[in-house]
Amino acid sequence: MRFSDGLKDLNGAATREILKLTQRPEVISFAGGMPSADCMPCETVGEIAAEILSSRAPYVLQYGRTEGCAELNAELVGYLCGLGLDASERTVQVVSGGQQGLDLMCKAFVNAGDTVLVENPTYLVFLQIAKTYGANIVGVESGDEGLDANDLERKLKRYSPKLLYIVPTFSNPTGRTYSAQNRKEIVELCAKYDTVIIEDDPYGKLRYSGGEVPTVKSFDKTGNAVYVTSFSKTVAPGLRVAAVHGDERIVRKVSIGKQGADVQNPALTQLIIAEYLRRGCFYPNLERSISVYRKRRDAMLDAIARYMPSEADYTRPDGGLFVWMTLPERIDCKSLLPRAIEQNVAYINGDEFFSDGSGRNTLRLNFSNADEQKIDKGIKILSEIFKKAITEAAK
Amino acid sequence: MRFSDGLKDLNGAATREILKLTQRPEVISFAGGMPSADCMPCETVGEIAAEILSSRAPYVLQYGRTEGCAELNAELVGYLCGLGLDASERTVQVVSGGQQGLDLMCKAFVNAGDTVLVENPTYLVFLQIAKTYGANIVGVESGDEGLDANDLERKLKRYSPKLLYIVPTFSNPTGRTYSAQNRKEIVELCAKYDTVIIEDDPYGKLRYSGGEVPTVKSFDKTGNAVYVTSFSKTVAPGLRVAAVHGDERIVRKVSIGKQGADVQNPALTQLIIAEYLRRGCFYPNLERSISVYRKRRDAMLDAIARYMPSEADYTRPDGGLFVWMTLPERIDCKSLLPRAIEQNVAYINGDEFFSDGSGRNTLRLNFSNADEQKIDKGIKILSEIFKKAITEAAK
Repeated sequence: MRFSDGLKDLNGAATREILKLTQRPEVISFAGGMPSADCMPCETVGEIAAEILSSRAPYVLQYGRTEGCAELNAELVGYLCGLGLDASERTVQVVSGGQQGLDLMCKAFVNAGDTVLVENPTYLVFLQIAKTYGANIVGVESGDEGLDANDLERKLKRYSPKLLYIVPTFSNPTGRTYSAQNRKEIVELCAKYDTVIIEDDPYGKLRYSGGEVPTVKSFDKTGNAVYVTSFSKTVAPGLRVAAVHGDERIVRKVSIGKQGADVQNPALTQLIIAEYLRRGCFYPNLERSISVYRKRRDAMLDAIARYMPSEADYTRPDGGLFVWMTLPERIDCKSLLPRAIEQNVAYINGDEFFSDGSGRNTLRLNFSNADEQKIDKGIKILSEIFKKAITEAAK
Repeated sequence: MRFSDGLKDLNGAATREILKLTQRPEVISFAGGMPSADCMPCETVGEIAAEILSSRAPYVLQYGRTEGCAELNAELVGYLCGLGLDASERTVQVVSGGQQGLDLMCKAFVNAGDTVLVENPTYLVFLQIAKTYGANIVGVESGDEGLDANDLERKLKRYSPKLLYIVPTFSNPTGRTYSAQNRKEIVELCAKYDTVIIEDDPYGKLRYSGGEVPTVKSFDKTGNAVYVTSFSKTVAPGLRVAAVHGDERIVRKVSIGKQGADVQNPALTQLIIAEYLRRGCFYPNLERSISVYRKRRDAMLDAIARYMPSEADYTRPDGGLFVWMTLPERIDCKSLLPRAIEQNVAYINGDEFFSDGSGRNTLRLNFSNADEQKIDKGIKILSEIFKKAITEAAK
């Protein structure tokens, strides 16, 4: 088979492949980034869908605009303005999950061989997307405050990258949040070197502690930051509704890319989210989700403190869905995963999140999809596996 | 803006851009390929959606498999086997409209600079998709029986193309159907030169006259034909449910491409189609649609015979949604379109469907989306415009 250079050596994303294993009910999965079923507004969505289909079925079933249903676009403008962004109809494109936003941004900007900068580590499926476009992916060093500005400038200068991809708030995979000062620096540096920033923000609304930090996009004066947000983690991932917001010229190219990629999102799922926002259901349900996830985060951090070997280093996120753990250098988390799965616990080995294949001694732990008791049990099981591995490695 | 080579010069697809104009209710649109609201099963879809959401909301709202919901995949296997194809679970990928199937096939095979063969003329959005991948698009000559086999072989030999894209049954834009003999030749030639065929078949079930012709895929013995079908024209385009069927290795690459592109289709719209098929609603509604569209096709052919200048040549399709018209060489259908729109009639100028920008004297007429009276009125208006243009051109 003469597959394209982008796909010929590409295997499935770890999160997707492991989903197949973790659908067994006995598995405690810290692997995916799945929201809790308890936090999804099942009844409200059912009511809204029934209403839409009884009153507007011909509209819902027919072709509609690529940009998105007018009703949803209007609600999105309101939602984005509520985040302090300067949104208007022509700056918003509806997409099928935040991920389609990332894909269409790559389609709009990346030629094979172009450089794309990412935080090291970063969202593993973005690495996969960038590879399908033949991008040269270069990691930027980072720490608790965000990206290392010196390393960023060095790489902007050296590679003249088309894009910088970041998840600055409750990052996937680390759970860390960039400081306001770091965000401002990133925007100024990228403007200077004409690199477009993709600010991926699926988790920003899920804050359990600490004070709000302005979006990266809010510091943007030149139009080269694009904000991607999604209702997957705050309403329901199965609806696949998300938005790209940015400079009109960029949003127009994203829209032309979407014309070819899939014409439009289904109207039904768009109108469900539009009506959900219009009725004011979003913030009350978000509050409920936050209280559920805060307890789960706390349960995970408590269990880690209680059971994990003292050599394990880990982040203490103020929000989002993930804790990031670093074990001693000799530990290979990928080779330990089958042992964990054998004992019905799953995680994602951290090397999947690194553009350069490093991070073999790291792992990502999701805390949104299991209750406190299961989190405690699962972390205890992992702790035993890691302790044993550390002992073995010391021999 | 440093846009990608694929998108930097790309404007919106004519069908999508004209949709914005033709949404005014006073416009008689022969432009899009929109099914009739009368043929869409609004009530049934409403009932099914309500049932799904009342019994399975947590499943519908959560993440699901990229390959498609198991329920839908099983129904699709049955549907495809019913078409005489050798389908099984691992040979089927759910996609968001047939168009995503075309996009993901290009993603799986096309590097910038690779050649893709198309019929000349062909589906205009496929041209747009192939351009986003930087393909070298080469047209193959065709006639009433299908592709010109000599021209096809010459171009297979010369360009070693990755893909051949065809709509062999009730073609978009011409409405023509390739003969069985031609299909067999195409499959054999493409196998010989290791070129993968994309058989796009959104209209095959919409036959109003003439006998069935086997799919191109059914002649395939080497696994290099991929069959793309969709429920957009037979159930509802707004649900965005379609399928790619082919060799396991190819379907797996399409699936990996979809992991990056948008993770999965929404589960709700997938389960609506699954349940619609399971309940046996598909064929009764198809029969109803066929009787509606047959009348509209006849009304359009009658009106053309009655009003159009004798210089107008046109196809008489046995099915599908389109009549293709050729006017005398000096007539430029693109420049006449504003006159038509001024009089509230829309069509697509035919040059949009040619890979080489030829066909300025052609146009595509859709007959599915207006009733017989409107079709008669609209064709009469167009006839006057074309007669006047022919007279002017003769001066």
